Amino acid sequence: MTLSEQEQNEMKLWKRTHSCGELNKGNIEENVTLMGWVNSRRDHGGLIFIDLRDREGKTQIVFDPKVSKEAHQLAHNIRNEFVIAVKGEVSFRGKDAINPNMKTGEIEIRISEMQILSQSKQLPFSISEYSDVGEDARLKYRYLDLRRTEMKNNIILRHKVSLLIRNFLNKKGFLEIETPFLTKSTPEGARDYIVPSRVNPGKFFALPQSPQLFKQLLMISGFDKYFQIVRCFRDEDLRADRAPEFTQLDMEMSFIDRDILFNLIEELMATLFKEILSAEVKRPFPRLDYDDAMSHYGIDKPDLRYGMKIHNLNEFFKDTQFSPFSEVLAGNGKIGALKTEQPEKFSRKNIDDLDLFVKSLGLGGLISIRFKEGSELQSSLKKYITEETAALLKKEMQAQPGDLVFIAAGSTEKVNQVLGLLRIKIANTLKIIPKEQYKFLWVTNFPLFEYSQTEKRYTSVHHPFTAPVDEDIAMLESNPYQVRSKAYDLVLNGNEIGGGSIRIHRTELQQKIFNLLGIKAEEAEQKFGFLLEALQYGPPPHGGIAFGMDRIVMLLAGASSIRDAIAFPKTAKATCPLTGAPSEVSSEQLKELHIKLDL
Amino acid sequence: MTLSEQEQNEMKLWKRTHSCGELNKGNIEENVTLMGWVNSRRDHGGLIFIDLRDREGKTQIVFDPKVSKEAHQLAHNIRNEFVIAVKGEVSFRGKDAINPNMKTGEIEIRISEMQILSQSKQLPFSISEYSDVGEDARLKYRYLDLRRTEMKNNIILRHKVSLLIRNFLNKKGFLEIETPFLTKSTPEGARDYIVPSRVNPGKFFALPQSPQLFKQLLMISGFDKYFQIVRCFRDEDLRADRAPEFTQLDMEMSFIDRDILFNLIEELMATLFKEILSAEVKRPFPRLDYDDAMSHYGIDKPDLRYGMKIHNLNEFFKDTQFSPFSEVLAGNGKIGALKTEQPEKFSRKNIDDLDLFVKSLGLGGLISIRFKEGSELQSSLKKYITEETAALLKKEMQAQPGDLVFIAAGSTEKVNQVLGLLRIKIANTLKIIPKEQYKFLWVTNFPLFEYSQTEKRYTSVHHPFTAPVDEDIAMLESNPYQVRSKAYDLVLNGNEIGGGSIRIHRTELQQKIFNLLGIKAEEAEQKFGFLLEALQYGPPPHGGIAFGMDRIVMLLAGASSIRDAIAFPKTAKATCPLTGAPSEVSSEQLKELHIKLDL
Repeated sequence: MTLSEQEQNEMKLWKRTHSCGELNKGNIEENVTLMGWVNSRRDHGGLIFIDLRDREGKTQIVFDPKVSKEAHQLAHNIRNEFVIAVKGEVSFRGKDAINPNMKTGEIEIRISEMQILSQSKQLPFSISEYSDVGEDARLKYRYLDLRRTEMKNNIILRHKVSLLIRNFLNKKGFLEIETPFLTKSTPEGARDYIVPSRVNPGKFFALPQSPQLFKQLLMISGFDKYFQIVRCFRDEDLRADRAPEFTQLDMEMSFIDRDILFNLIEELMATLFKEILSAEVKRPFPRLDYDDAMSHYGIDKPDLRYGMKIHNLNEFFKDTQFSPFSEVLAGNGKIGALKTEQPEKFSRKNIDDLDLFVKSLGLGGLISIRFKEGSELQSSLKKYITEETAALLKKEMQAQPGDLVFIAAGSTEKVNQVLGLLRIKIANTLKIIPKEQYKFLWVTNFPLFEYSQTEKRYTSVHHPFTAPVDEDIAMLESNPYQVRSKAYDLVLNGNEIGGGSIRIHRTELQQKIFNLLGIKAEEAEQKFGFLLEALQYGPPPHGGIAFGMDRIVMLLAGASSIRDAIAFPKTAKATCPLTGAPSEVSSEQLKELHIKLDL
Repeated sequence: MTLSEQEQNEMKLWKRTHSCGELNKGNIEENVTLMGWVNSRRDHGGLIFIDLRDREGKTQIVFDPKVSKEAHQLAHNIRNEFVIAVKGEVSFRGKDAINPNMKTGEIEIRISEMQILSQSKQLPFSISEYSDVGEDARLKYRYLDLRRTEMKNNIILRHKVSLLIRNFLNKKGFLEIETPFLTKSTPEGARDYIVPSRVNPGKFFALPQSPQLFKQLLMISGFDKYFQIVRCFRDEDLRADRAPEFTQLDMEMSFIDRDILFNLIEELMATLFKEILSAEVKRPFPRLDYDDAMSHYGIDKPDLRYGMKIHNLNEFFKDTQFSPFSEVLAGNGKIGALKTEQPEKFSRKNIDDLDLFVKSLGLGGLISIRFKEGSELQSSLKKYITEETAALLKKEMQAQPGDLVFIAAGSTEKVNQVLGLLRIKIANTLKIIPKEQYKFLWVTNFPLFEYSQTEKRYTSVHHPFTAPVDEDIAMLESNPYQVRSKAYDLVLNGNEIGGGSIRIHRTELQQKIFNLLGIKAEEAEQKFGFLLEALQYGPPPHGGIAFGMDRIVMLLAGASSIRDAIAFPKTAKATCPLTGAPSEVSSEQLKELHIKLDL
C-alpha cells in the first residue's frame, strides 16, 4: 500500500520535534516526531525494527501492529535509504536490548503514524560497508559517499575549524575582507586560469592563485590585520596531491616582525588542536634554518615525529684511503650518515634493497656499518676505518652495540636529498611514525633566489615581494645568491601547511630585487604596476602567511587523502565525475565570448 | 636630514604598544610606541603637531625640541600620509586644547624618538575632503579610497556582519560547507562565465551563478542545515546595479516548510539589525502574495516605509460614460488610483509633469481628482462622476478635503507597473521616505511559470526545481499558468535582499515540470542529470534561500552604492581600473589553453 503520487505531493509535512541523535531515558513516554533515512530494517515477523538515521545519529524505531496496524503495514514497503517521517512514543528498550554503543541505545520509538517522504533505488554501493569502493564511484555519487559517518564527520569538522579560526582571528583584531575572483594575472609564476569577458571582447580575467597583491594593498589602506578563508586556483600539471581549486587561510599584518606573527600563529594552532582534538601542542614551535633542514633532514619540511637525523662525516674521512670518499671530499661533496631505528630488524636482504633504492636515486650506493662491542664494527668499509675513527664515529652517531648506520657520499645536494628520502622510507617501513602526535616546526631563512632550470634565470623562491634578511641586504649586489629571505614555512608532521614572508615595503628595494630577477620595468609595470604604484603612497611594514585549509582539515581529521577533506573535490585529473565538469560548450556560447577552439 | 636607503632598510622595527584609538587620561605618564599614517601636520614654530592615524583612530603627537631635538628636526621632513613610528610619553593636553570629538581628545604624546617607516607622494585626492572625487579615480586608487573613514567603516561592518551571520547560523545547527567554483553550467538561464581547461583540451569549467545544485545535493547527503557565504558569478549585460561577481549568503534546510524558514530568517535579520545598528525590527514580518504586491504596489518588492497603495476603481466606473474607461473595462483592464501624500505641494505644473511621465511609460495619461468639502471635487473627469460615486470614491480612497488622487487606466499589468513607478517617483520627490527605518516584507506565492519573450516559451519564474503550491498541483496540466509556486522573496525597504523556495523532492513531479517547461529529457539530462539521478536516492523535503550580501551590507552601512560595500568592486562596465582587469593575454597562453580569439 503506497500512496498515489498525487496524495504524496499534497501530504502536509509534519513538524520534526527531535533529531535522531538526542533521545534517551529522560524522554521516555514523550510523543516525538522524527524524520530521516532508513539505515537498516529488520523484520521480526510480528515486529519491524528500523534504525532511522539523520545527521545527528540513529534511533531505533519499532512498528508493532498492536500500536498501529496501518503504520506496520506501510513499514513493509520501505527499504534502506527511504526517507520517512514517524510519530510515536519514546519507550525503554528492555534491559537485554540496550545498545551501549549508541547514544540513543537505551530507548526505542513505538510508531503510531508514518509518512514515506521519498523512496530510494538500490544504492550503487553500501553506506556502511565501504572499503572496496573505488574513488571514481565515490566521487560520481558523492552525495551518497557523504552519507558515510566518516565523510560526514570530516565535513562537520571542516565547518568547526573554519568558524574557530574566524572567531579566533576576530578576537585578535583581524578583519575578514573579501578580494576579487575575477582579476588580473598574479605574479606567482604558475599557471592562471583565465576567463573570457563577453562584454570586453578579446580580454580575459584571471582567477587568483592567491590574494597576495590585494592583501598587500589592504595593508597600504591601513587595515592592519587582514584574513580571509578563500578559494584559490592553479592550473597546474596534474599531480595526485594538487587540486585545481583549493582553499587558503590567507593573512597579513602591518607593523610586525616575524616573531609577532609566529607567536600569533602558534596560539592559533594550539587553540585549533586543543578545541578540535583535545591535543596539547607544545609552544613555542621549534625553528630551523632552511640550510639546517636540508643538511639534517634532506628536505625543507622534515617530519620531527621521529629522529634519524643526517650527520656529516666529512671530518672523519678527511684523510681516508677509500677513493670514492676522497674524491667526493675533493669535489666539495658530502659524506652523510644516518643511524636507523630498530637496527635488529635489518637483514642483509633489507640492506641490499636500500642500496638499490639509493642507486635508483642516482648515488653510487649505500654503505652500512653495524657497530659491535667497543670499536668493533662490521662493514665493507671496515679496512678503511681505524680503531680511533671507529670510536669517534660511534660517538658522533651515539651508536650502541648492534646499531646500524647508513652512509652515502656524493654532491652535498644529492646526499641530503637521498638520505632524506631514505630516512622517510625507513620510518614508513618500520612503521615508527606515531599517530596522534603533532610536531610543528618553523623553517626559516630560505634563500631569496633560486635558479630556475625552465626559465634559465634566477627566480624568487617565495615571490618577488619577499624581503631579504636585513643583514644580507648589503650582499644583494655583490653576492645575491647567498642572500637569505624573510620567508618562512610552517611544517606539521612533514607536511608544509603554511608559508609566508615579511614583504618589501620600499619601492627602491623592490626595484633592486626586480633588477636582480631580470624583471624589466615594463614587465613589472604590466604585471603588478598597481602594487608598485601603491607602494609609493605610504606603505606600512607588513608581512603575512597563507595556510592550506584542505591539508589542515585532512590532518585534523586523520584522513589520508586531501579529497576526504573536501565536500566536492576534483579527481587528480582535474575533472568532476559527478557533474561531468569540465565539459564542452556550444559554439554559440564561444562565439558570444569571442573565442574559438584551437585543438 | 633623512636616513639613507641602507640605513632605513636595516632599521630594526620597534614593537607597537598601542593603537592610535585607545589612549586616554588613564594612560598619562605611560611611555608608548605608536605607528601609523600622518593624517595632518601643523608647524607652530617651536612645536610640530601631528594627527597620527591608524585603523583604530587618531592620536595627537607633539614634537618639542625641548623633549627631543633630533625627533623635532626629523619631523620637519614628514608630510601627509608618511608612515612613522614614534615613542613618547602620554600627556594631558591642557584644558583649552581638549577635543571632545576625538576618543583620544584629552591627551597627546610628547615624542622622544621617531622612525620614518615610509614616505608618500602627494595623493591624487585628499583622504579627508572628498565629495568631488569621481568613482573612476576612487576605484583606480582604491587602496587610498579605503583609507577614508566611511569606506573603512563599511569594510569593518561587512566583516562584523559576516561573522555574526556565521555564528548565528552555527548556533542554529547550520554547517558552512564549501562548494566548487570550477564546475558545470548551472540552470539559472543567465550567462555563465566559462574557464578553458588546459589539461582537458576543448573543455570548459563554468563559474557558478549560485551553489543551487550543490546545496540540494548536500540535503540529499543528509547535512540537514547548510549555509555558505560564497562568491557567485554572472556574465550579465552591463547594468549600474549588477556586478559580475557578487557574494551570496546561501542556505538550505531539510524537513522544513516555509514557516520554519521564515521564522529563522526573521530572527537572523532582527539579530543582525539589533547587533549592528541597535535597531529593533518588528516580527513577524508581514507577508504579501505576489498578486497583491503587483496590484497594490505595481512591483514585487514594495517599499513599505510609505503608503500610497494602488486602489482598483473598476467597480466605481462599471457604468461610466467616459469612453476611455469603458473601453479599458471591456478589455478586462484596470482603472487604478493612488492618493498622494502632501497633496498641498502639487501645483498644476507638477501634475502636468506627472501626466507626461505616465505617458512616457506608455499609458494614455493621468487623471487627477482633487477632493473638496462633501462630494465636491475638481477634475477633468468631473462630469462623469455622480455625486454618489464621488462619495464612494472618497470613502474608498479615505480622502479628506484637499486630498489629491491620481487615476490611470489601461491593461492591468501596465496600470500596476506605471502607478507603481509613479508611487516611487512621488515618494522620492516629496522626500517622504524615512531613513533609519527598516521595513521587511515577505513576498510569497509567485507564479510558477512566466512567458519569456526572448525564448518564446514558458520558463520558470524562480528555477525549475521550485515546488508548486500543494493545492495547485492538480492544475499543473489543466491550467499551468495559474499555478503558484512555493517561492518567496525577502524585501527590505524596497530592495529584494533574498529569495528562495521550497524545492521539488520527487522525480515524477520534477519530470512533469520539465515537460511543461518544454525541457527535453536529453537537455535536462545534459544540464542537471546528476541532480535528477540524486533525487532517486531518498531526497528529503527541502528548501532554502539566498541573500545578496553586498546589498545587505550596503543597506546596513547606509551606503548609496553597492560598490561602497565591496573592498575591490568592478565598474558598471565590469572592469577594474586598479588592476586593469580584464586584460589581453599572450598568444602562447591562449595556445596552451587550446583557444584562439574570434573578434
